[in-house]
Amino acid sequence: MAEVLLVGVDGGGTGSRARLADLSGRVLGEGEAGPANLRFGVAAGLGAAREAVEAALAAAGLPSESLSRAVAAFGLAGATEPTMLAAARAEPHPFAALAITADAQIACLGAHAGQDGGIVIVGTGTCGWAQVHGEQHRIGGWGFPISDEGSGAWIGAEAIRRTLWARDGLVPWTPLLAEIFERFERTPTRIVAWMTGAKPRDFATLAPLVVSQAEAGDAAAEALMRAAAGHVAALARRLLELGAPRLSLVGGLAPHVERWLPSEIAARVEPAQGDALDGALRIAHGEAEARGLVGREPRPVGERA
Amino acid sequence: MAEVLLVGVDGGGTGSRARLADLSGRVLGEGEAGPANLRFGVAAGLGAAREAVEAALAAAGLPSESLSRAVAAFGLAGATEPTMLAAARAEPHPFAALAITADAQIACLGAHAGQDGGIVIVGTGTCGWAQVHGEQHRIGGWGFPISDEGSGAWIGAEAIRRTLWARDGLVPWTPLLAEIFERFERTPTRIVAWMTGAKPRDFATLAPLVVSQAEAGDAAAEALMRAAAGHVAALARRLLELGAPRLSLVGGLAPHVERWLPSEIAARVEPAQGDALDGALRIAHGEAEARGLVGREPRPVGERA
Repeated sequence: MAEVLLVGVDGGGTGSRARLADLSGRVLGEGEAGPANLRFGVAAGLGAAREAVEAALAAAGLPSESLSRAVAAFGLAGATEPTMLAAARAEPHPFAALAITADAQIACLGAHAGQDGGIVIVGTGTCGWAQVHGEQHRIGGWGFPISDEGSGAWIGAEAIRRTLWARDGLVPWTPLLAEIFERFERTPTRIVAWMTGAKPRDFATLAPLVVSQAEAGDAAAEALMRAAAGHVAALARRLLELGAPRLSLVGGLAPHVERWLPSEIAARVEPAQGDALDGALRIAHGEAEARGLVGREPRPVGERA
Repeated sequence: MAEVLLVGVDGGGTGSRARLADLSGRVLGEGEAGPANLRFGVAAGLGAAREAVEAALAAAGLPSESLSRAVAAFGLAGATEPTMLAAARAEPHPFAALAITADAQIACLGAHAGQDGGIVIVGTGTCGWAQVHGEQHRIGGWGFPISDEGSGAWIGAEAIRRTLWARDGLVPWTPLLAEIFERFERTPTRIVAWMTGAKPRDFATLAPLVVSQAEAGDAAAEALMRAAAGHVAALARRLLELGAPRLSLVGGLAPHVERWLPSEIAARVEPAQGDALDGALRIAHGEAEARGLVGREPRPVGERA
């Protein structure tokens, strides 16, 4: 029998990534594709994950048939919803075995190298996840606009809210608010038109501007970043309360939000030991073991060769 | 020539109402129809307004042909957007004349009997409007979720946000939050599913529960109503700053929000002298005058016969 391959996929609301490794953990190739959020369609989400896998295969110089000797683990946004998770698991796939779980769970496994710990994901959305004595806890991340406080989408939407407040004379103008207003040609109805149908990732496109203006000392931007960090800290506090022995922030906005955290939470944050794809590969390795495809000695996986 | 008729329409995001009157102000009939927000389509908005007019005609026992001797004024949600307003004004209509303006403007005219004054509309959305020395000022009301703070949609969405916070252990349960969670069978993913595609008026369906729980002393509901009233007060303060000599709150939630207002604003609130349809009929009367269809003596309109 040909050598077993491991496939890990991190499918989020903004894009998906795949990593192909051998049983020793050596990375053979990586690939990317579009968003893989099951909330916006199980078929579309799985399709994007598969595309990322095909790209990783191509990068590794392997044919599609190799997937029949691969054990895969997908971490997908929206996979905490039982109905959608069941639907995704019922779909046919080309792998020797496929495990599907939440994107937050693979990120948590990756950040703590498979050990107990908690993470707050700070990207387009926010979500807290912890593994404590092997048990999974999920908090927050229920989706914009009624959840995901402190996320890129939240920061962007709140920045627009304050821009309209300034236009209406309710708060003073700052460079941040003036710049956003200029982007919409100083016309509130252009903001309204843009907002109609805007997705979380559209709102999140404004987050980098808020981040840089906060670093430059803009009062409105600083207040927003501090408010965002306050929401992230609330999730972090709850994860520690649930017994998480380690805490990491992950996601594109994590480093930017971290500097605005209250000091008692900032003191608890440790760097992630690996990424979400490392976590997915750990699950794939576990699945391969459970199927007797791996020798009895545990080998380290999820570490770059 | 047959007697001139006046038609007023108040077209909002939740529904539209029409009132038919003669030149003396005597009400001949009223009618209702669906939402008339131009933001969700000019043709649909005008269609709903026309439906309400047809219902008012039927109530008055008049045939559709009577509209050719009617001067109409429509106050429509979304009519502050210049492109949509121009598109609406370019549409054919069966009236002798038709004026189209914002729903907030007719509400303001009605509340202050055509005189200078300011209003805060507190319904599915919130919006501030003032007429000062004949000049129109509009603040807020740019649409949920980036504006309309303190509205029914905002109150409902914030109540759901706090329900999820309670589920996640971030805030204590209260009777309000427990009741909302029960409505979704204590399943966050049901809330997520409901929220996907929910419109402002869907969120606003939760507002009456928050209102009644606040009156019963629920801590989360009280805090929410006080926060909503704080946002309404910010709009009111700005209208007074702009020079509005009188201030009224209008809209379905107005009486419920009023009791939570800061006292210095509550002290400035006066009852509305008429409703938005009275305001629309004032505009229609003015149009009829401008066309020489009315005798020189101004007659009171917009007062119930």
